[in-house]
Amino acid sequence: MQNINSFALRYNLQNQLFVLDQQLLPQEEKWLEIKTVKDMIEAIKSLAVRGAPMIGVAASFALAQSAQNKTSLDQLLTEAEQLYQARPTAVNLMNCIERMRSALREKDFAQAALAMAYELYHEDVTLCDRIAHNGGELIQDGDGILTHCNTGALATAGVGTALGIIHKAHLSGKKIHVFVDETRPLLQGGRLTAWELGKLGIPYTLITDNMAGLLMAQGKIQKVFVGSDRIAINGDFANKIGTYSVAVLAHYHRIPFYVAAPYTTVDFACPNGQSIPIEERNAQEVTGAAGSFGKVTWAPENASVYNPAFDVTPAALTSAWITDAGVFYHKDILAGCFTKKGV
Amino acid sequence: MQNINSFALRYNLQNQLFVLDQQLLPQEEKWLEIKTVKDMIEAIKSLAVRGAPMIGVAASFALAQSAQNKTSLDQLLTEAEQLYQARPTAVNLMNCIERMRSALREKDFAQAALAMAYELYHEDVTLCDRIAHNGGELIQDGDGILTHCNTGALATAGVGTALGIIHKAHLSGKKIHVFVDETRPLLQGGRLTAWELGKLGIPYTLITDNMAGLLMAQGKIQKVFVGSDRIAINGDFANKIGTYSVAVLAHYHRIPFYVAAPYTTVDFACPNGQSIPIEERNAQEVTGAAGSFGKVTWAPENASVYNPAFDVTPAALTSAWITDAGVFYHKDILAGCFTKKGV
Repeated sequence: MQNINSFALRYNLQNQLFVLDQQLLPQEEKWLEIKTVKDMIEAIKSLAVRGAPMIGVAASFALAQSAQNKTSLDQLLTEAEQLYQARPTAVNLMNCIERMRSALREKDFAQAALAMAYELYHEDVTLCDRIAHNGGELIQDGDGILTHCNTGALATAGVGTALGIIHKAHLSGKKIHVFVDETRPLLQGGRLTAWELGKLGIPYTLITDNMAGLLMAQGKIQKVFVGSDRIAINGDFANKIGTYSVAVLAHYHRIPFYVAAPYTTVDFACPNGQSIPIEERNAQEVTGAAGSFGKVTWAPENASVYNPAFDVTPAALTSAWITDAGVFYHKDILAGCFTKKGV
Repeated sequence: MQNINSFALRYNLQNQLFVLDQQLLPQEEKWLEIKTVKDMIEAIKSLAVRGAPMIGVAASFALAQSAQNKTSLDQLLTEAEQLYQARPTAVNLMNCIERMRSALREKDFAQAALAMAYELYHEDVTLCDRIAHNGGELIQDGDGILTHCNTGALATAGVGTALGIIHKAHLSGKKIHVFVDETRPLLQGGRLTAWELGKLGIPYTLITDNMAGLLMAQGKIQKVFVGSDRIAINGDFANKIGTYSVAVLAHYHRIPFYVAAPYTTVDFACPNGQSIPIEERNAQEVTGAAGSFGKVTWAPENASVYNPAFDVTPAALTSAWITDAGVFYHKDILAGCFTKKGV
């Protein structure tokens, strides 16, 4: 075991845990120290920690840290359940906590929990590399690529999912241009993806979500890559609100629309998109915008608001599912390959 | 001639002209005094005055006011040209200024200019009423209606265009619910339409632009009504950025998509959407949000941005064109009715 120093997560052998506070980006790069599971739950709920794979790994380290601090097994199991319920849509979190629970069944559960957190971390790094490798072949030199929300090194332990593919394609020398949906209401595209692409030196253009259709009509977009928080076994998948609208627009313009996610995002217990619970969030996210950049409210006081955090994109609108276990196409899903792990 | 007291424009017989500063809504209701044509051009460019019909009428009053102030004819013609060029997309402005120019050809051009400004104002009020009447028949009791941007009494001299139809349907006792796209980047929906619907007591729900697809998939939306800044004779039309995306989404979900505008919005010199110039605006509108509510910037400094103010929706995605001269359907447009004024 060695110190972990990823884009957005740090853990050292003195049992110190830090997350990069993504609520403060891009204005401020501040590492938030996590001392308890309660701290981590707060960080997850406030979106200081975000991205389905990152949430799972970070939550696991919080539990491992608690175990190192000699928390009783009973209390650790209670904390595991609290972490499990911190956000309802991402299946990665639930998978990670399940594996942490199995580690807690070991005799030396504290040691086993830490080993499992490391294992989950390294697995995610490897998964991201495989996703980037598998998806990279779909990108051609000269492509204009639309992406939504943030699916990069901030959202995972590794290089990212959809943005990891884009990153690796850029590194391989392909000339690409990325169009970034700002992703209202929480602006993960405008704040995080724009920042990450700027750091990586990948050419990009920031747009408001409602410009995507125009860009497609103008022929500026050849591919769409998005991430996912949960994939049903029929291929329907949940992702950040607005993904479904992008999928419909891509379908209309006959632009390939790819979802990229760890294979663990596939939820075998979930037959289709209708079974995926959709988290609703606070109205204030829609009546204005808030973050380290300040807080403004532009809508009338007491405006009536709807604020679903996710939507579900049906399999029919998806060109392919890019995972670490391979790229799945419609024929693969129809053949039941999701449950066989591999095409 | 009498004092004018519309929702967003005031003119009195002491030659005083005021516009409601729409940049300050909904936080502040402040009337801006216009003393010169230069003031009005500034108000138009800063979007203190907005909405294609309102811009045309307000610009005409600024010119009439200048004529009352004994500005020379040469100078008035220069000012007319400056107003004409204040915003490039809305044809109403150009039409109004053309008519003001014809008034300036009269012997008593100062008097003629004022009379023409009044005429344009009253025409718009009547037009709005006719549009609302013609479009009202398309709304059923129980409809969920999506609208984009602001097309109400703030955007016109009268009751509005798309929002005027909704307003009149509500007044007629139909139970409707309006879903309001916030309309990034300038938030006319979140700031103005939400405010106007609240004032009128019409039930509404504010959403971010990227939620429209989800609402359609959920079956919450039965009709879409939007306005237009310019309609080509083939039925293609320009409107606020994001309208095209909504049209594609409505098409995919088989939801009727209606555009409502004064008949004068039809530009006989414009064969199709490709001939409509699209204004590009400042990058800062996309990297953050600013108004009377404050100013925030959330994107990285020097983020690369694309900011078209409008997009063009092709006739093929439009169910009908609602004007004061009647409701035009595809067959009417194919029969050349746009140039015959009337179905």
